[in-house]
Amino acid sequence: MVKQERAVRTRENLIRSAAEVFEREGYALASLTAISSQAGVSNGALHFHFASKEELAREVEGAAAEVVQKMAESCRDSADTLLHSLADATCRLLDTVAGDPLVRAGFRLGRDPSRKSGEGGLWRWWCAWVQDLVSQAQEKGELAQGVSPEDAAAAIVAATAGFEVLGTWNRDWLSGERATRFWSLLLPLLAAPP
Amino acid sequence: MVKQERAVRTRENLIRSAAEVFEREGYALASLTAISSQAGVSNGALHFHFASKEELAREVEGAAAEVVQKMAESCRDSADTLLHSLADATCRLLDTVAGDPLVRAGFRLGRDPSRKSGEGGLWRWWCAWVQDLVSQAQEKGELAQGVSPEDAAAAIVAATAGFEVLGTWNRDWLSGERATRFWSLLLPLLAAPP
Repeated sequence: MVKQERAVRTRENLIRSAAEVFEREGYALASLTAISSQAGVSNGALHFHFASKEELAREVEGAAAEVVQKMAESCRDSADTLLHSLADATCRLLDTVAGDPLVRAGFRLGRDPSRKSGEGGLWRWWCAWVQDLVSQAQEKGELAQGVSPEDAAAAIVAATAGFEVLGTWNRDWLSGERATRFWSLLLPLLAAPP
Repeated sequence: MVKQERAVRTRENLIRSAAEVFEREGYALASLTAISSQAGVSNGALHFHFASKEELAREVEGAAAEVVQKMAESCRDSADTLLHSLADATCRLLDTVAGDPLVRAGFRLGRDPSRKSGEGGLWRWWCAWVQDLVSQAQEKGELAQGVSPEDAAAAIVAATAGFEVLGTWNRDWLSGERATRFWSLLLPLLAAPP
């Protein structure tokens, strides 16, 4: 039992370490040796848990997805309108990307040009989640007349992705406050008059 | 003279080939051998023109910057208002990114996590250019009352960067038409009534 617990903790530790090394080096240059050494375990211990760098990358993406999906669902349940849920979720997403290396690496792995198998990763999920909420907002009559739900969703998804990318070299772009100001601009345009 | 011309052409050919290999492989995995072979010249010929992969990356970024800066300036001069110039430039930028591998690689190199020296590259220029035009638009009274020029510029820059990133795995995001629809949404909000 104690042994099992220790294995679980080592595994989680390796996933967190992988996230930090992927963020620092990019996917191509991240080495399994750097990851195991960052986690303070042997190469053998790493290989006991993960067969390859790609498997580690998928685990990082999976763990990041769990964090942000939970966060997004809690925003959906707590705001008074779906558009407010979306605004909350965007702000909390950017704060989480700024503050949590695991989530940051999760999104970044999906857009790393040296990782052939990335194909969007978490960005695909975010895109689908936003599209779903915007079309529900439209069905509920929350969207202003004449606003295309597709275009509204595209603007929200693109701006979020842009803030994350621009935040790679300038952390000022990466904050909930930035997203709040984006929403202050956009919300009066999207929301139907109450 | 003929020899000089041939050297210039080989150099340009190597820069274009480097752009294609950088895009396909990402910075870390792009090899000088793949670049010279793509250009149909020897490794020695490549080394005669460029000392390192980093130098080639900077040349790709420089050549891409030349293309987009020329395009942006022509948009600034041809539209009736500065906000229309910005809209035109955003649309043409995304069309150029979609259609020209050199420009695509130029932007992508600036955000490649495996390239330590990227630090934004062309994205920094785009950010400064948009900020400059938006504050000029404000001075000319083109901006609607209550719109913060900083927030307007941030939304435009972030959306452009987002379309480029999302376009990495889904080309639908990468088109002037996409940008046109973004502007159709945003322009009524930003522009002062005529």
